[in-house]
Amino acid sequence: MAAPQYKLTYFDVRGRGEAARLMFALAKQDFEDQRIQGGDWATVKSTTPQGFLPVLETNEGKISQTTAINTYIAEKFGFMPDTAYEKAQAISVMLTLNDLTGRISSQLYMPLVYKVMPVPEDVEAKKKTLAEEINTCLAFIENLSNSGSKFIFSDKISVADIFLFTIMETQRQVLPELNSDNEWFLKVFNNVKTDPRVQEYIKHRKTSPLGV
Amino acid sequence: MAAPQYKLTYFDVRGRGEAARLMFALAKQDFEDQRIQGGDWATVKSTTPQGFLPVLETNEGKISQTTAINTYIAEKFGFMPDTAYEKAQAISVMLTLNDLTGRISSQLYMPLVYKVMPVPEDVEAKKKTLAEEINTCLAFIENLSNSGSKFIFSDKISVADIFLFTIMETQRQVLPELNSDNEWFLKVFNNVKTDPRVQEYIKHRKTSPLGV
Repeated sequence: MAAPQYKLTYFDVRGRGEAARLMFALAKQDFEDQRIQGGDWATVKSTTPQGFLPVLETNEGKISQTTAINTYIAEKFGFMPDTAYEKAQAISVMLTLNDLTGRISSQLYMPLVYKVMPVPEDVEAKKKTLAEEINTCLAFIENLSNSGSKFIFSDKISVADIFLFTIMETQRQVLPELNSDNEWFLKVFNNVKTDPRVQEYIKHRKTSPLGV
Repeated sequence: MAAPQYKLTYFDVRGRGEAARLMFALAKQDFEDQRIQGGDWATVKSTTPQGFLPVLETNEGKISQTTAINTYIAEKFGFMPDTAYEKAQAISVMLTLNDLTGRISSQLYMPLVYKVMPVPEDVEAKKKTLAEEINTCLAFIENLSNSGSKFIFSDKISVADIFLFTIMETQRQVLPELNSDNEWFLKVFNNVKTDPRVQEYIKHRKTSPLGV
């Protein structure tokens, strides 16, 4: 079989694709970082397995669904926790954050950050509801975590920590009024952020025109 | 550690809980099959990690999110495919079927089967749209499968086959007009259904008052 080659196709934002990019960087694995600009989406859409992004191309085929892509990279490069229980909880954490991201994106990022929709009249009510949902989501993750550890499951960084960090990094940057005051979360977030390999990645990564 | 004990909490229907029940049966693993009747849901809800079902209780803690529960049981009892690529595709298949189930359930099962909502005026249009979505979903799964094999990935049954079977079994029973004429799907569906262990399970399983 040929040497593994990976191509990640996603929009030119961090969003649901950034955890994959960060894992490749931490694993020092080259990959093609194909970033679709809005105007090209209609053409690219028909080449995707399900009409949505991200998509990861591998030697074996294309994978779609964010949690499937992240699980694949995590299994290959050592970011999946060791036990069946913690693997399942990592998937549960990713699915929960993915749902939350969908709601924040469609209700707030679209009008306020990407500016592809009018700002809804009830934007302040939406922010309040979503802030509560963020807190509920983080409380759920804290509750299944091992609270004495650096990261969610242990002192070793996992795909769940990386997805949590990348999703919340953007959220904290663009909508600081939604930020969590959950102490446990802030500890894990900073433990990911201050990892020297993550710092190095952040220093050199591409910035998108939207700044997110 | 004590002997493993499992308790699955779900509503008294097959739905998103049936794949877990079927895997436990195939693995000859005892578990407590807690089925919540509609009237008890308000009380049970507050005991769940995220306010929804199914929930799997294990010696290590509670797991929520259907795909996380199914992944856990599959990892423990040998229903997860062997390679990182096929594991990721199994997760992708489950997530796609789970999304489809959500749409069928809220738009058609709620009014027509569970009868907890009025039948929408555009019910025929909804059926047509959902039939197209089912076909799109099955074409996606067929496309990532190994077409010469008995099941999606190989001749060995996996969690993706089991989830596909349990979801489509109910759908084919209650809304036969949505049935797929996808030949590949019908082959896999029948290969699961005619497995002697699955036949044995079906013969003895609990039936719910709703018949699904």
